[in-house]
Amino acid sequence: MKVAVLGFGVVGQGVYEMLRTCPLFEAGPVLVRPGKADAPFKVDDIEKIVNDESVDAVAEVMGGVDVAYAYGVKALKAGKHFVTSNKALVSAKGVELDALAREKGVGFLFSAACGGAVPFLHNLELARQSDDIEALGGILNGTTNYMLDRMQSEGLGYEEALSEAQALGYAEADPTADVTGLDALRKIMLGCAVAYDRLPVEGLYNEGIDSLTAADVAHFQGKGLTCRLLAKGGLAEGKLYAYVQPALLPADAPECAVKKNFNMAKYLGKNSGQIVLMGQGAGRYPTASAVIRDLECIRFGQREMLHELCEYSKAENDGCLCTYYVRMPKACVAEFELAESEAQGGAVYAITKPISVKAMHEKVRALRKGGMPIFFAEI
Amino acid sequence: MKVAVLGFGVVGQGVYEMLRTCPLFEAGPVLVRPGKADAPFKVDDIEKIVNDESVDAVAEVMGGVDVAYAYGVKALKAGKHFVTSNKALVSAKGVELDALAREKGVGFLFSAACGGAVPFLHNLELARQSDDIEALGGILNGTTNYMLDRMQSEGLGYEEALSEAQALGYAEADPTADVTGLDALRKIMLGCAVAYDRLPVEGLYNEGIDSLTAADVAHFQGKGLTCRLLAKGGLAEGKLYAYVQPALLPADAPECAVKKNFNMAKYLGKNSGQIVLMGQGAGRYPTASAVIRDLECIRFGQREMLHELCEYSKAENDGCLCTYYVRMPKACVAEFELAESEAQGGAVYAITKPISVKAMHEKVRALRKGGMPIFFAEI
Repeated sequence: MKVAVLGFGVVGQGVYEMLRTCPLFEAGPVLVRPGKADAPFKVDDIEKIVNDESVDAVAEVMGGVDVAYAYGVKALKAGKHFVTSNKALVSAKGVELDALAREKGVGFLFSAACGGAVPFLHNLELARQSDDIEALGGILNGTTNYMLDRMQSEGLGYEEALSEAQALGYAEADPTADVTGLDALRKIMLGCAVAYDRLPVEGLYNEGIDSLTAADVAHFQGKGLTCRLLAKGGLAEGKLYAYVQPALLPADAPECAVKKNFNMAKYLGKNSGQIVLMGQGAGRYPTASAVIRDLECIRFGQREMLHELCEYSKAENDGCLCTYYVRMPKACVAEFELAESEAQGGAVYAITKPISVKAMHEKVRALRKGGMPIFFAEI
Repeated sequence: MKVAVLGFGVVGQGVYEMLRTCPLFEAGPVLVRPGKADAPFKVDDIEKIVNDESVDAVAEVMGGVDVAYAYGVKALKAGKHFVTSNKALVSAKGVELDALAREKGVGFLFSAACGGAVPFLHNLELARQSDDIEALGGILNGTTNYMLDRMQSEGLGYEEALSEAQALGYAEADPTADVTGLDALRKIMLGCAVAYDRLPVEGLYNEGIDSLTAADVAHFQGKGLTCRLLAKGGLAEGKLYAYVQPALLPADAPECAVKKNFNMAKYLGKNSGQIVLMGQGAGRYPTASAVIRDLECIRFGQREMLHELCEYSKAENDGCLCTYYVRMPKACVAEFELAESEAQGGAVYAITKPISVKAMHEKVRALRKGGMPIFFAEI
C-alpha cells in the first residue's frame, strides 16, 4: 500500500519514517506547503497526489480545519483511503468525510486523533459493535497532564510549568487549545461519535487548568488531593453528555499514577466492564504509530470508525450533577450553594452542594466576565 | 455470520448470549458434551457442527487441550473460522492450528486467551506489524491478583484468600495452574508468539504465589513493598526470554493500583513507547466480549494473529539478571550470594546479589526438593 503524507512536521516526519521502514507500506509523496521544510518526494500541490494512481492512501497530519478538509475531500473523491491525526478536522467535519468515504468505498480512520499512541478509538469502535458503552473518558491531554504533574510534584507555578512543557515540545507556542480543555473536548467528541453515533457539537463545556495557581495546588495537596484534567462522555437516561473539567482525586486514584505527558483513556462496557488504556498521548513516533495502525486496519479490510448513522448532535450536561471544590474571591461566596468553606490568603476555598455541570460552568463564566478570578474542580 | 459455540460453561453461556443479541452475528448450535448442562440448539456431536454449511465460524470455550484441538482441526478443515479463549490449547498447538487456518484461508484468532476483556494480543499484533516490540508482560492472572490484594489489604492468609477467590468464582476448584504461575506463563507464551513469531515451549520458568504466607506479606509491607505476580517476555540481545515470578514493588508503582481480579498488560514499542491496558482478566461477559471481538475482526477481514513464520521455540532466561527478596530457613542462607539479610521468627529474609532468572528458579527448585520452604520475589 503506497501512502502519501500531508504535512511534514513533527508527526509527518515520524509517519514518513515508519512508512519507509515497514515492509507493509510504501512511502509516497509528501505534501509540504510552499515555504515549509523540505521533505523527500516533496510535492507542493495536492493535485499531484490525488492524480497519482499509484497512491492508495493519504495520511493527513498537517493540522487545521479548512485546508485539511478540502484536501481530505479531494483524496476521498479520488478513491484514496484517508487517515488523519487531526482532531480539529474530525470533530468539525467527521460526518461529511465519513459519508464521502462510504460513498467511495474507501477507508476513513482517525484513531491517532485521540490519545496519540493509545489505541483508544480503535478499541472503542470494536467494543461498541457488540457491547453497550456506558461511559468513556479519562486523561486525554498530555500537555496539561505534564503541567499538573510538574506543579504538583515540584511545586512549579503555572507559567513555569507551561514554559517547561513548551521547551520539551509537549506544548505548542500557542497552548490555548490544550490549557483551556478544548483539545480534550475535541477528543471526547470523537469518542462519543464512535461510541454513540452522535458527534456532539453543541451544549459542550470545557474548563481547563489555566486558572490553577501554585497556591491552589498547595491547598489541595494539604487536603490529600491531586488535580487531573478529565474528559467525560456517556449516556445518562438516553441523553448524551460530554464535558471537560479538572477533578481533585485522592492519591490512590488510578489517574494519579498517570505521570508526565501520558494519557489514560477508559470506557465502561456493559459486557467487558471497565477497560483502561494508557500510553503517550503525543510525540512524533507515538502519534505516527497510531496513524500507521489505522493504515494496517485498512489493509486488512476495516473501512469505518464512524458508523453510517452517525450525525452531528448536541450534548446535554444539565443532568450531570457534580460537587465542586472552588477557589474564589470572598465577593463570590453568595453566588454558590456551599456545603463548607474556608478562608485562606484573601481567597475562599469552598465545596459546593451538588450542581449540574451546565449550571456550574455557566455561573463561573458569568462571574469571570465580571472580573472574578475563580478555579473550580469536580471532587 | 453464524457462529457455533463449543462448550456451555461460564464463558460459553456469555458468548452465546452476546451472539444472540448482537445484530452482526447469528447464534448457531452449541456443543455440549454428554452429561453436561443443557443449552439452546444443543448438539452432542462435533460432526453436526462441522457438517452444517450454515455455520461460518466456531468459538471454542470448553478448555482442555486434546479434545479442543481435535475439534479445532475439524472446524478448520471444514473451512470454518476458529476463535478460542483457551490458552492451554493455543500455547500447546497454536502453530499447527495457525498453519491449518492459513491453508484453508480462514481466520484463527485467540485474543480472549490472554487478558480476558483486555484487548492485549489484538493490539500487540497490530503494533508488531509496524513497530519493534522490545518487551511485554504484566499482571496476567486475575485469580492471584485477587488473592494478593486480599492478603495485603485485609491480612488474609493464603488459604483464606484462596477460599474467598473460589467462593467468588475467581479461582477454579483446582487452582494449581493459577497459583503456580502456569496460567500466566501460558499467556506470556502467547504474547511472545504474537510479538516475535516464536512460541516458547522450553526453557520457561514460572514461580507463583503458593509459597507466600501472611507473615511474608506483613514483613514486606513493613518495608513498604507490595507483592504482584508478573509475567515478562521480550528480546535481550536477540535472545527470547519468558518467565513468571512474584515481584515486590513500591506502593506508587502502577501495578499496585491494579486491584481485585483485574489484569494489567503492557508492551513497549520502539515507536509507540509503553502501552498499558487494564481490565477484567476473567469472568463470563468480559471474556465473552473478547471472543466476540475476535469474531468482529474476522468479519472485517483479519485472518491471523500468529504470522506465517511463527514456530515453536525455546526461552533463554540465563541472561535475565534479577535481585531477589527471599524468605528461607537459616539452613539455606549459605546457598545464596546475599547483599543483606535479617532473621525474623525462625526464618531469614534476605536480598540476593544479582542472579539470573534461570539460576534462581533452579536453585530454589533443588532446595525445595530437599524439603526447604522458600518464597522468593524479584525486587
